[in-house]
Amino acid sequence: MKQPTTVSEYLIRRLADYGVEHVFGVPGDYVLQFYQQLENSPLKVVNTCDEQGAGFAADAYARLRGLGVVCVTYCVGGLKIANTTAQAFAEKSPLVVISGAPGLNERHQNPLLHHKVRDFDTQLNIFRHLTVAATDLIDVENACCEIDRVLAAAVRHKRPVYIELPRDLTGTVCSCTRNPLPPATGSDPDALREALAETVQRLGQARHPVLVAGIEIQRFGLQKPFMQLVEATGIPFATTPLSKSTLSEDHPLFVGVYEGAVGKEQVRQVVEQSDCLVMLGAFMTDVNLGIFTADLDQALTVSSSSDGSSIAFHQYSKVFLVDFLSGLLAQDLPQRALTADQPSPASSVFEAQAKPITIARLFEYLEIFIDRHIVLLADPGEAMFAAADLTIRHPAAFLSPAYYTSMGFAVPGAIGAQLARPDLRPLVLVGDGAFQMTGMEISTAARFGLSPIVVVLNNNGYGTERPMTDGGFNDIPAWDYHRLPEVVGAGQGFEVYTEQDFDQALKAAMERTDAPSIIDVHLDPDDHSPALKRLTDALGAKVRGEK
Amino acid sequence: MKQPTTVSEYLIRRLADYGVEHVFGVPGDYVLQFYQQLENSPLKVVNTCDEQGAGFAADAYARLRGLGVVCVTYCVGGLKIANTTAQAFAEKSPLVVISGAPGLNERHQNPLLHHKVRDFDTQLNIFRHLTVAATDLIDVENACCEIDRVLAAAVRHKRPVYIELPRDLTGTVCSCTRNPLPPATGSDPDALREALAETVQRLGQARHPVLVAGIEIQRFGLQKPFMQLVEATGIPFATTPLSKSTLSEDHPLFVGVYEGAVGKEQVRQVVEQSDCLVMLGAFMTDVNLGIFTADLDQALTVSSSSDGSSIAFHQYSKVFLVDFLSGLLAQDLPQRALTADQPSPASSVFEAQAKPITIARLFEYLEIFIDRHIVLLADPGEAMFAAADLTIRHPAAFLSPAYYTSMGFAVPGAIGAQLARPDLRPLVLVGDGAFQMTGMEISTAARFGLSPIVVVLNNNGYGTERPMTDGGFNDIPAWDYHRLPEVVGAGQGFEVYTEQDFDQALKAAMERTDAPSIIDVHLDPDDHSPALKRLTDALGAKVRGEK
Repeated sequence: MKQPTTVSEYLIRRLADYGVEHVFGVPGDYVLQFYQQLENSPLKVVNTCDEQGAGFAADAYARLRGLGVVCVTYCVGGLKIANTTAQAFAEKSPLVVISGAPGLNERHQNPLLHHKVRDFDTQLNIFRHLTVAATDLIDVENACCEIDRVLAAAVRHKRPVYIELPRDLTGTVCSCTRNPLPPATGSDPDALREALAETVQRLGQARHPVLVAGIEIQRFGLQKPFMQLVEATGIPFATTPLSKSTLSEDHPLFVGVYEGAVGKEQVRQVVEQSDCLVMLGAFMTDVNLGIFTADLDQALTVSSSSDGSSIAFHQYSKVFLVDFLSGLLAQDLPQRALTADQPSPASSVFEAQAKPITIARLFEYLEIFIDRHIVLLADPGEAMFAAADLTIRHPAAFLSPAYYTSMGFAVPGAIGAQLARPDLRPLVLVGDGAFQMTGMEISTAARFGLSPIVVVLNNNGYGTERPMTDGGFNDIPAWDYHRLPEVVGAGQGFEVYTEQDFDQALKAAMERTDAPSIIDVHLDPDDHSPALKRLTDALGAKVRGEK
Repeated sequence: MKQPTTVSEYLIRRLADYGVEHVFGVPGDYVLQFYQQLENSPLKVVNTCDEQGAGFAADAYARLRGLGVVCVTYCVGGLKIANTTAQAFAEKSPLVVISGAPGLNERHQNPLLHHKVRDFDTQLNIFRHLTVAATDLIDVENACCEIDRVLAAAVRHKRPVYIELPRDLTGTVCSCTRNPLPPATGSDPDALREALAETVQRLGQARHPVLVAGIEIQRFGLQKPFMQLVEATGIPFATTPLSKSTLSEDHPLFVGVYEGAVGKEQVRQVVEQSDCLVMLGAFMTDVNLGIFTADLDQALTVSSSSDGSSIAFHQYSKVFLVDFLSGLLAQDLPQRALTADQPSPASSVFEAQAKPITIARLFEYLEIFIDRHIVLLADPGEAMFAAADLTIRHPAAFLSPAYYTSMGFAVPGAIGAQLARPDLRPLVLVGDGAFQMTGMEISTAARFGLSPIVVVLNNNGYGTERPMTDGGFNDIPAWDYHRLPEVVGAGQGFEVYTEQDFDQALKAAMERTDAPSIIDVHLDPDDHSPALKRLTDALGAKVRGEK
């Protein structure tokens, strides 16, 4: 005989079913009861300093685990994570937002309860803009069905969902009789057949076909069929900044990360000169494709994603990535010789010298240093653009908000990443501007025994903006980042001026596996990576209205 | 002959017309051009560490100046201040949110520009929920009229407004031919006459009438007519937590801050036993009125606000506060003898002892310490509830989000407060949990030469929540708050265990007028003020579903 299940118990059980082990958030009175139930459950609560940190941590967790959860109180908690939820939406990260709310009985008795903005639905209405499914569990009769529907939407669309829990319903027993999951919508068979036939024909005639693995290859777990396609055909493949590390970057057919004129010239040539470019699960976004510098010929492009497909100038609204990819694999495609030009292997030795460290040398060092046990998190700015050139050998070991580009992601993201993948050591690359937004979450990492290595690229301000339009507003106060461990009472800090300082600091940080490390790298404010220079030239023209 | 005016120039000029001198924010590429124009204007840019800090600072500035401005980039900036804008909406603070946005030309050419969430209107649509007027300046023909309309709405309704600036329009010349300001909507004369007559009759028959000054008395600048009413009639008056310090608290007819059973018992008796309670510009909110403990007899209550009026159980939807108050003043009201019970004056000497400091003794000290040159900012939690009992002699010298109660307001709020009122020294009372959210903005204060004194009530966690429902989630990591000045390179820190420590620290902080001070006050986690105990008893019953 089944035990009665409360709404809270059901929600917690379903999250665990999806592989969730951690819930990130900050408690508040409207969600306290649920926090207590979480504490008595197999799920672990990870409180951050601010809700923003919890939102970013849960997003990173979702990207590595397939589902992440952030749990906050009503409005004063929920509205603090509007931005982090927006990022998860824009970059297709399957994030569950759970918010406490005033009890239904209270609402009638006290129309002006604390934390309320305009009316009781304000937060719900805002999150409808930021999620693919949202529910307010106001009816115990359908609460379980609603939970199932909303969680299934997160997993199917790889985008955020929102669940609002009135506090007087959390302990109510619910009945779970219906299974509301509709069958998955498949592709239209005729349209699929036609699209596949045309693609096969184009691939057959092409002399330089190229495959592009977009972020959906990772989100939908399609790495295996994608690599089967690569190996069955011998067609070289590229990724995008957002999908970087979706596939191991030491494969002989890997061309590199394509990002227009911002990326490596060799990659740009291979991709833009292709006479049949097959983009699988890629977003056609500006940063992702090199800020207006991408020069792709649509007439020679085949594209398929979870939203639909297109070939040249015609669309297939009912042909979806999963079916298109498995359909391609079932075709009789010619096997090519392995012709991808392999870049000459980078030097495997870095001679650290006693001279001031530069961005270029720092990334040369990291290129050799990064191994299979590292997950690299790069915050938007120099960190992200320069890191796109690093070779990541371990699939999914690179996390960066390469499209939405919200500053402040990487430090709290490292908390989510290490809890999601305890086998990997987080290495965070973050600018000083972004660190001042969320870097104090290093304290949360210490509290939960995590050991991210945070490299602060300290150039006294918003370095990405200076080449576009400079002014006093791009300066930020100088902090002694390496001394923060003294304030938060955990971890260790290093101050770096030279290559030798950096070498010693990184080695010492690697040895300290029970606490976070902060490496404060002093850089010349005018020192930029080649990638950032190309990017800011393109963006600067936009800002000044030249183009 | 008039010089041509660009959209940016017009916006900046209109903000200056309203008395704005400072703009708070964080730059980003979609708003860089406008930042440059701000830097070349009479307005001063104040960049904070994170957008959240800018939002709170601008809210505090708005409360003291009549208009505050926060300026951010698209989505990654704007959505970070959804919560701070929600607070301004909930508590009627006239805040202008300016957000950069992609240029109109770019939108057509590149449908997936960076920072975009769902579509180009997502941020605008979200801010429609959080503001009384919102505009996207997509049409240069009516840009000036739209700016006028939206700014006028902020000033009229004392609530946030939203202006979105596509970056390719900021430098465009606009024509400003129309004045779109409609005449202010006044009260219905017949309804006003009837409401006034009934109020006069009730006041004439009452033996213990009491006036309550709500927050709108401050927001609409009605302190003078309110005090004329008090002095013409001799009727004692109270305030609410949100309107605390709207009027000087050393007036002989001031009863105290009314907040139901959470406030002082003497005040509760006077207000609840009144046979004619006239509430002017007050929100009937839960925290504001003592979390469900207010016991007011609606049959004996007259209420008037900017939204309408009511007497007993009937409403006057077209009778508004300004007219009602001036109408009352024009009536022939009887003059009463000054009968308000004055509380016995508190001791003016505090003997600091070498024993551990308690919440009660800390507030006894502050009661004597606070003078006319201080603006007190109290963050939600113990700081806010205990501070409600302090005597604030200087009008508008107390700021606290007493209704919306978003943690993290007070430290960045102090930046806005000191820039708005350079004649006042900010004294911040903040819990350790709230400090960990936004306390690093102390660095922003230092950068702009401000000198807030930040008193951290350090009790190792969310002290307000422990008595309701406790668990590991209420613990927070222990920081050495007093050592943060070493990290941010400015200001001074003090660690306090005893009364004597506190006395010395506060005196030293007062003497240092060129930089911020942090006073880290170690408190027993089980030490609560009487006000907080009464509050958490009431809230705890709600959380546990007992009531």
